[in-house]
Amino acid sequence: MDFEPSEKVKALEAKLKAFMSEVVIPNEKVYQAQLEAGESRWQIPPIMEEMKEQAKAAGLWNLFLPNERYGAGLTNLEYAPLAEIMGGSPIAPEVFNCNAPDTGNMEVLAEYGNEEQQQMWLLPLLDGSIRSCFSMTEPEVASSDATNIQASIVRDGDEYIINGRKWWSSGAGDPRCKIAIVMGKTDPTAARHEQQSMILVPLDTPGVKIERVLNVFGYDHAPHGHAEISYNNVRVPAKNILWGEGKGFAIAQGRLGPGRIHHCMRSIGMAERALELMVDRVSNRVAFGKRLADQGVIREWIADSRIEIEQARLLTLKAADMMDKVGNKAARKEIAMIKVVAPNVALRVIDRAIQAFGGAGVSDDFPLAAAWANIRTLRLADGPDEVHRDSIARMELKAAAKKEQ
Amino acid sequence: MDFEPSEKVKALEAKLKAFMSEVVIPNEKVYQAQLEAGESRWQIPPIMEEMKEQAKAAGLWNLFLPNERYGAGLTNLEYAPLAEIMGGSPIAPEVFNCNAPDTGNMEVLAEYGNEEQQQMWLLPLLDGSIRSCFSMTEPEVASSDATNIQASIVRDGDEYIINGRKWWSSGAGDPRCKIAIVMGKTDPTAARHEQQSMILVPLDTPGVKIERVLNVFGYDHAPHGHAEISYNNVRVPAKNILWGEGKGFAIAQGRLGPGRIHHCMRSIGMAERALELMVDRVSNRVAFGKRLADQGVIREWIADSRIEIEQARLLTLKAADMMDKVGNKAARKEIAMIKVVAPNVALRVIDRAIQAFGGAGVSDDFPLAAAWANIRTLRLADGPDEVHRDSIARMELKAAAKKEQ
Amino acid sequence: MDFEPSEKVKALEAKLKAFMSEVVIPNEKVYQAQLEAGESRWQIPPIMEEMKEQAKAAGLWNLFLPNERYGAGLTNLEYAPLAEIMGGSPIAPEVFNCNAPDTGNMEVLAEYGNEEQQQMWLLPLLDGSIRSCFSMTEPEVASSDATNIQASIVRDGDEYIINGRKWWSSGAGDPRCKIAIVMGKTDPTAARHEQQSMILVPLDTPGVKIERVLNVFGYDHAPHGHAEISYNNVRVPAKNILWGEGKGFAIAQGRLGPGRIHHCMRSIGMAERALELMVDRVSNRVAFGKRLADQGVIREWIADSRIEIEQARLLTLKAADMMDKVGNKAARKEIAMIKVVAPNVALRVIDRAIQAFGGAGVSDDFPLAAAWANIRTLRLADGPDEVHRDSIARMELKAAAKKEQ
Amino acid sequence: MDFEPSEKVKALEAKLKAFMSEVVIPNEKVYQAQLEAGESRWQIPPIMEEMKEQAKAAGLWNLFLPNERYGAGLTNLEYAPLAEIMGGSPIAPEVFNCNAPDTGNMEVLAEYGNEEQQQMWLLPLLDGSIRSCFSMTEPEVASSDATNIQASIVRDGDEYIINGRKWWSSGAGDPRCKIAIVMGKTDPTAARHEQQSMILVPLDTPGVKIERVLNVFGYDHAPHGHAEISYNNVRVPAKNILWGEGKGFAIAQGRLGPGRIHHCMRSIGMAERALELMVDRVSNRVAFGKRLADQGVIREWIADSRIEIEQARLLTLKAADMMDKVGNKAARKEIAMIKVVAPNVALRVIDRAIQAFGGAGVSDDFPLAAAWANIRTLRLADGPDEVHRDSIARMELKAAAKKEQ
Repeated sequence: MDFEPSEKVKALEAKLKAFMSEVVIPNEKVYQAQLEAGESRWQIPPIMEEMKEQAKAAGLWNLFLPNERYGAGLTNLEYAPLAEIMGGSPIAPEVFNCNAPDTGNMEVLAEYGNEEQQQMWLLPLLDGSIRSCFSMTEPEVASSDATNIQASIVRDGDEYIINGRKWWSSGAGDPRCKIAIVMGKTDPTAARHEQQSMILVPLDTPGVKIERVLNVFGYDHAPHGHAEISYNNVRVPAKNILWGEGKGFAIAQGRLGPGRIHHCMRSIGMAERALELMVDRVSNRVAFGKRLADQGVIREWIADSRIEIEQARLLTLKAADMMDKVGNKAARKEIAMIKVVAPNVALRVIDRAIQAFGGAGVSDDFPLAAAWANIRTLRLADGPDEVHRDSIARMELKAAAKKEQ
Repeated sequence: MDFEPSEKVKALEAKLKAFMSEVVIPNEKVYQAQLEAGESRWQIPPIMEEMKEQAKAAGLWNLFLPNERYGAGLTNLEYAPLAEIMGGSPIAPEVFNCNAPDTGNMEVLAEYGNEEQQQMWLLPLLDGSIRSCFSMTEPEVASSDATNIQASIVRDGDEYIINGRKWWSSGAGDPRCKIAIVMGKTDPTAARHEQQSMILVPLDTPGVKIERVLNVFGYDHAPHGHAEISYNNVRVPAKNILWGEGKGFAIAQGRLGPGRIHHCMRSIGMAERALELMVDRVSNRVAFGKRLADQGVIREWIADSRIEIEQARLLTLKAADMMDKVGNKAARKEIAMIKVVAPNVALRVIDRAIQAFGGAGVSDDFPLAAAWANIRTLRLADGPDEVHRDSIARMELKAAAKKEQ
Repeated sequence: MDFEPSEKVKALEAKLKAFMSEVVIPNEKVYQAQLEAGESRWQIPPIMEEMKEQAKAAGLWNLFLPNERYGAGLTNLEYAPLAEIMGGSPIAPEVFNCNAPDTGNMEVLAEYGNEEQQQMWLLPLLDGSIRSCFSMTEPEVASSDATNIQASIVRDGDEYIINGRKWWSSGAGDPRCKIAIVMGKTDPTAARHEQQSMILVPLDTPGVKIERVLNVFGYDHAPHGHAEISYNNVRVPAKNILWGEGKGFAIAQGRLGPGRIHHCMRSIGMAERALELMVDRVSNRVAFGKRLADQGVIREWIADSRIEIEQARLLTLKAADMMDKVGNKAARKEIAMIKVVAPNVALRVIDRAIQAFGGAGVSDDFPLAAAWANIRTLRLADGPDEVHRDSIARMELKAAAKKEQ
Repeated sequence: MDFEPSEKVKALEAKLKAFMSEVVIPNEKVYQAQLEAGESRWQIPPIMEEMKEQAKAAGLWNLFLPNERYGAGLTNLEYAPLAEIMGGSPIAPEVFNCNAPDTGNMEVLAEYGNEEQQQMWLLPLLDGSIRSCFSMTEPEVASSDATNIQASIVRDGDEYIINGRKWWSSGAGDPRCKIAIVMGKTDPTAARHEQQSMILVPLDTPGVKIERVLNVFGYDHAPHGHAEISYNNVRVPAKNILWGEGKGFAIAQGRLGPGRIHHCMRSIGMAERALELMVDRVSNRVAFGKRLADQGVIREWIADSRIEIEQARLLTLKAADMMDKVGNKAARKEIAMIKVVAPNVALRVIDRAIQAFGGAGVSDDFPLAAAWANIRTLRLADGPDEVHRDSIARMELKAAAKKEQ
């Protein structure tokens, strides 16, 4: 448990912070303006591609990928403070090619894809020239239970035929989004966790239809977009299967570990920004003859926010460190813990900041309301809090039972 | 403290409930579809005017107005269960001409307007043919402190000249919105609470400019709209002043009592609907082989929601009853209490329901996310929670000090 | 739902308040001093019997008993504000012969006892000359599930033989305690809720042994005392059975309704006293140059305390009113709700007061620490919060299911 | 931030854990029994001195003292996991000569005492042959503000005369307690933080009178005891002053850093024990046909407890590490944070365990109720939560203001 960042990481931190304050933060409003000025909201604001080029040139690119052949080769612990910094702006992760769900998809391809799949899809994703989506969750069933999944992937000669309906396929609204990783059942009669498979489905395959894009608390999250997609007799080559039939659940488990912790790191970064905004606001706003910082409960909010952020960060570092040292499976209790803690902490801190900002807080003049809505989904995505708490408790009970014997 | 509804109220309750389930709830999706199909989002879905006619015909019209000459003549206590029922749907209050801020504005006109002002503006508002907005809050200052207000209202011969910038002038996005009640200072040198005045400003007066419409957690709340409005040398006839110069603060105090409690009643109604939706969902959704209702903490959520709603409703009834019996001023502690309680209860209940719904909960497939965003503003509107808590505590401290003497 | 007290109740309230401030509160320290000066802590401080005489003379006696033949004949709603007043002092309930568990036991005897049982045990209890205990909970099993009960009551000719071990038989430490109502199984093979019976056991019967007295957070609650009692082949006449074999569960259910709500009323009374003490303390104590009432979060504590107490009181009144109008069974959701709410509210209010008092708060210089410890047991007694929340949720789910059909 | 324990620490951990489970935990009941069997509660149960000898022999002695001349020479970070282990039993800290307030007093003597003072008082304290108390808090004033202190220390020739009244002089009930460190004002006209001095007062000096021992939630904490002590014209040699006149506040600041964090470490240890007890209980207790661990919210309690403990521990380690590396002053934000977090976490975990234990939880059959009461005082001792939160917020505001410039 040595959380002290190496010199390499400190250098990256410094560079990234400078890039954030000089390039990303000032361009947040440019990005919004370009988005609103476009013919539709489903086009990419040009400033994004400009910033991506700058980030690439600065060596701040694909930092998330531990794989040394394809990515920066950083450990989870090394990446943690960097992801936190990126989390401070909603547009930052993409600037550095570190945004969900592409990161998770790239990891899957790097880890479980074969050479051909990597050439075809991983390289352009790493390059930032295409985007991807992940089609797992289904509207009709409680998808936190993987055995509930109803989409089917049926072998037919040299092809697989895919049928099903998915939603929360985030990123599919993006015109650059070319490929989906789809989870479905190849064998509903197999063992509980060997029924599912994952397969690569190009979005222009006949039978793939984006039915609509879902709002999140009124936000359309354009141009990214959370799509509901129907797959009707979609045929793809058999070689598109990932790893092999029946490996879907195993891949999902492998994918979710890093994905979850990245979300946590970014949530903490946004909590930090919210706290910073709040501290600034209450230092300068006056009511009833005193600045807000000198009234009632405001200082308690600041203290509690600092306390909660600090603890969440330490727990994230511990989970990251364990993932590095003992692997995602042995670290699953720590991952579950931080998966519960980080979004809840961020939501509380942001909510306090909103309250301190008054009407401005719920509007889009500040990034608070949007951040709140965005992070609220993380209490549900990749399993609701309740499922993770339940896992933690079961591990505790099991460990105690074992000890007693 | 007799909360038992009279026969008259029971009959209205029954009629209203039937109207909600037969007309309003089924038309929620029609309303949305028409809104989205319109050329712009700032047009009125035709179904709204249809429902208004039906409600008028059914005698479910202007129930909010205690004034017997112009309205239904119900007491606050009588109106409470009716407002709660209306609160169950975001589109319902307007159907019954009981929506903010028009209700508050109508009360101001009925109470403090002169005959000419009433003929000109109150009658068409009561009829539902025009809409209105309330221009008090300003972007540059903490407006919970009324002395912070910067807009000026200056007498010039037979006219007043208005200058200032307001935001959260809700309803100004509506094409039917014709009139604003504007708060500003006529005499910044007067006593603390006699500096402010209110004046009627037709929205088509030169110099009135709707700068933009504010989002609330990503929702534009079209076609209603929360406007930022600039008033640049706006000239209106001197007779447009309400009650008289220096009466602005007094009117605001009078206006806010009923306005606050109406919001509370409706919040409770929405909490009830969220609980109903949650109970329905968890009774029918299955994960890990059991319906959600039989898992972990779900039943605790249901119980806590019921407990909190029940208490909030009783406190609302008490506050309403006191307003009727001892007046808004003597009831201000109870009003402050329920102003804090009701939105917070509703937010907790809705948030639990969102969590129980999973991804669907944060989307617009159910009214939960929109309701949450909407009610979140009520912790700020008409004074943030913290200001009300502070008032309650000061009243307690003062009462104790008095007793001791 | 008419909570307005009648003239009769108002008169009792006034008299009771005067008695509390003139007699009971000033004698709290006398009571403690006499208790500590006694040879053992299991003697009755003489001031108690003196105050009882005064209360009897003042007509403030047995107010709890709705039965008109034996008691004051007040409804639950009428008794509520009176019980709340008594709750303000730990020694008050006994002064007015309204203390647990004697009240519950007297109700059982008045309701289910036969004439002989009433003559023998009810009359001296009503008179305050003896005390009683209630022996239901067992140390070895989770007693919130009545079918877990292991004590046996076996018929043997004209007698019953009782065997078992009970604890939390509160009041058995009192030298005046003469009689126990014991719950046990007469027929373990009968239907789930007809296995249990209740029987009257004089404490001087051979085989009855008080094993020890339990502490509650370090308090021995002398001279009342929470006893662990063993019953070893205890023989009592067959006529001592209450109502009949197999009626134990039914009696327990009947007994617990009023018992629970009395505890709630008193908890609210103690919360009021804690708030009063806190308001007084923070108005007079100075740190860092300002009185505590003008610092940080203190006023938020006062406001939240007032808000929570007010709501808890209203819910208690509603539950009491329903018990009176539709009976304990139909009111069981409301009883369960207030059973959860009242102790938790009181604990929060008292805990805030303790915090405001600093070191003095955890000591016995003020009644706060003792009150906290005492009320903490109410989250467990008569079923833990969790069991009651579960019942509430099941009732909600059932009602919704019924509606849907 | 390298939290990995060294080999030396790991070895101590292992030895200490073994000693706890083999010696201390099994003797908890022996200690209680001996205490109750004694003539008075203010005698030392012989088992304590026996265990102390064993601990000394095992090299588990004075581990708290960073000073290498007198103590184990461990850093705060090294001592943290050891103190946590000791925290698991209320009697453990004394067994290892690591109990408050002696640890703090020994640190003061080692750090600020002169050679003579060390010979006279530090050596027997290190040896465990005498005990000490710390007389700072006063009943009449809010002592979290050091300038409020009223006790006087007046120079008179070769002596100082001490007058004042102190309470919460913990440990003074112990017959082995020989020496008090008393805080008072030598110069009320000096600068705010130079008015106070500390002086050594042997408890047998004429004029020192233990007025009474304070209860904590009903516990007398015998034979330790929290004393109220009056100092009436108490004369001690002038050489008894610590460091020098006017240094009292500085010593207090220095003393409180380690003292606070030791309390935190131990609180976490007790939280761990409570969680362990709860997990064991719910795994084995059955109600309504299922073990408690499989019902309702119990698993949520376990998960939340684990999550909160884990975070509190990490924050404690960070604070300890900073104290070691940058000093107590630079680490004061982290010390304040953990001072707020650790007791609150422990109280929540213990309260959940109490609830899971039912009636047994509030009794003294398990260490839960006593631990709760004990740790509840830590939200007040060495400054209430509110004062620490306020400091944290002020540091945040100041840092932000500095950054902006």
